[in-house]
Amino acid sequence: MSETILNFLPLTTEQQQRFDTTAQGHTQLYFGDSSYGTGADVPEAVLEQASVIIGNPPRELIRRAKALRWLQTSSAGVNAYTAPGILPEGCILSSASGAYGISVAEHMFAMLLSLMKRLPAYRDQQFGGVWQDLGPARTLHNARVLCVGTGDLGSTFAKYCQALGAHTIGLRRDASKAAEGIAEMHSMSRLDELLPLADVVALNVPEEPDTINLFDRSRLERMKPDAILLNGGRGSAIDCEALADVLATGHLWGAALDVTAPEPLSADHKLWQQSRAIITPHSAGGDHLDLTLTRIVEIALDNLGRYLAGETLRNRMR
Amino acid sequence: MSETILNFLPLTTEQQQRFDTTAQGHTQLYFGDSSYGTGADVPEAVLEQASVIIGNPPRELIRRAKALRWLQTSSAGVNAYTAPGILPEGCILSSASGAYGISVAEHMFAMLLSLMKRLPAYRDQQFGGVWQDLGPARTLHNARVLCVGTGDLGSTFAKYCQALGAHTIGLRRDASKAAEGIAEMHSMSRLDELLPLADVVALNVPEEPDTINLFDRSRLERMKPDAILLNGGRGSAIDCEALADVLATGHLWGAALDVTAPEPLSADHKLWQQSRAIITPHSAGGDHLDLTLTRIVEIALDNLGRYLAGETLRNRMR
Repeated sequence: MSETILNFLPLTTEQQQRFDTTAQGHTQLYFGDSSYGTGADVPEAVLEQASVIIGNPPRELIRRAKALRWLQTSSAGVNAYTAPGILPEGCILSSASGAYGISVAEHMFAMLLSLMKRLPAYRDQQFGGVWQDLGPARTLHNARVLCVGTGDLGSTFAKYCQALGAHTIGLRRDASKAAEGIAEMHSMSRLDELLPLADVVALNVPEEPDTINLFDRSRLERMKPDAILLNGGRGSAIDCEALADVLATGHLWGAALDVTAPEPLSADHKLWQQSRAIITPHSAGGDHLDLTLTRIVEIALDNLGRYLAGETLRNRMR
Repeated sequence: MSETILNFLPLTTEQQQRFDTTAQGHTQLYFGDSSYGTGADVPEAVLEQASVIIGNPPRELIRRAKALRWLQTSSAGVNAYTAPGILPEGCILSSASGAYGISVAEHMFAMLLSLMKRLPAYRDQQFGGVWQDLGPARTLHNARVLCVGTGDLGSTFAKYCQALGAHTIGLRRDASKAAEGIAEMHSMSRLDELLPLADVVALNVPEEPDTINLFDRSRLERMKPDAILLNGGRGSAIDCEALADVLATGHLWGAALDVTAPEPLSADHKLWQQSRAIITPHSAGGDHLDLTLTRIVEIALDNLGRYLAGETLRNRMR
């Protein structure tokens, strides 16, 4: 059967040729741009015929693709497309999980080390020309790092921490499943028991009913007084109001968030003013590193070959 | 022969007991404080009898210890004590090289990642409540890191870079000597040839006639336009005036200095105002991590045992 493939990835000519080669005998149309496809310029007639979509066009566009049988996202999360009424009945959904591990984990790692060495505070005094020692630093050497969520991101981050001499503890639903970089794996149900022992707590959990406000005021207060909290997953995992309050009391060495709730954080949110917090605008992943797109392309090409050959897809979510 | 040992390390009671045990049958006096010994309170009569000094008291004090036969420093560098007229003829000198590797390398690594992810620029907009993406980031994955100087600090730093996927190239006087963390070792004479290929250049060289202004304007200009320069060794290795000028022209992704020339950098030095530079006040090593003192104590205890048994010392510099 001939497929009509709409490809929204921002490809180079050479990458486009590889997609053409993989899908020889099928129709493939390219709508990619640097925003990973807004879908604004897709004619309705084309959309009606689409059987495969590669990329993350708007949900409204997907909803109109009534003949869609497979969506391969360029994102690691697929939440945007799983609500009822978006994908047609029986449509296969696969993600680009694995493409973002390095980008997000490295960014979180940078934020962690930056806090440990007080770099934000040194930056604050830089433009005043102030050469002043701000006191003791922290180290990952022999630090206990608790990774809440040990998928691609959490596992890559843990691997980096291990390389600098940290002891890594992972929490996941099924503790019998090992993950690279994690020295000890425990069930998520042990969070409250392990939390007060951790020097660093790194959150990389998807947004689900039981992860919303996972770090509320009481969990934040259970952390070691000089612990560091990181969030690279979904902003809703931390109550940001409570975090600002807890930091204001002097609790915690610091907190680093690439994701927040709400997002964007409003200009007058009190968390901005906490000097032991650092915040980046959900910029750890996305298109911030070229290697991420390279990996998305590899996953999508591999899956396209598999799909056309009737084989099992990687990262199949449903 | 009974030794008179003056110990300037800031020791815990338990550590002091270990020194007592190691030097049983000898006289050991403790002058340690949190500044690693200023030596202000050492009676002249005691100083005259001192045969061993452990720590980094002021040069003036060492100069008056006429019976000194061994100085074990708490610093990695020993420059302060090698000028003529400081140590008596024949006095042995050993350093604490190896104690600072983790502290300094981790700090440099934090500065590097911080620049790669634009964390200083995100910090600059934080207190204004600005949620704004600042564009592409950099990664260590497949980056080419040139380590100029591959002693304890350079080698540890290189090991960290490798763990995040970098290709590490080392430069040292004797290229036949390998170092952990370095994938390719070359002679220092190849600097100008390798410099334009490096994504990251990390300086960890001692101050010597041929390392002063090693990175002058012309070498800075030979670097890749988007390279990152780091200095964790001695400030004089980079011409800081030239660095400020070169950054002002838009050359280089950024520069991170824990050491500068002059030091401290004067409040009106133009380098402070370069937003792609980050500066810390020689705070990467010193007493910023507890583990550094632990390592100094291990080296000093080991050498004290060796010295009293007439064995070869570690880190002997002369």
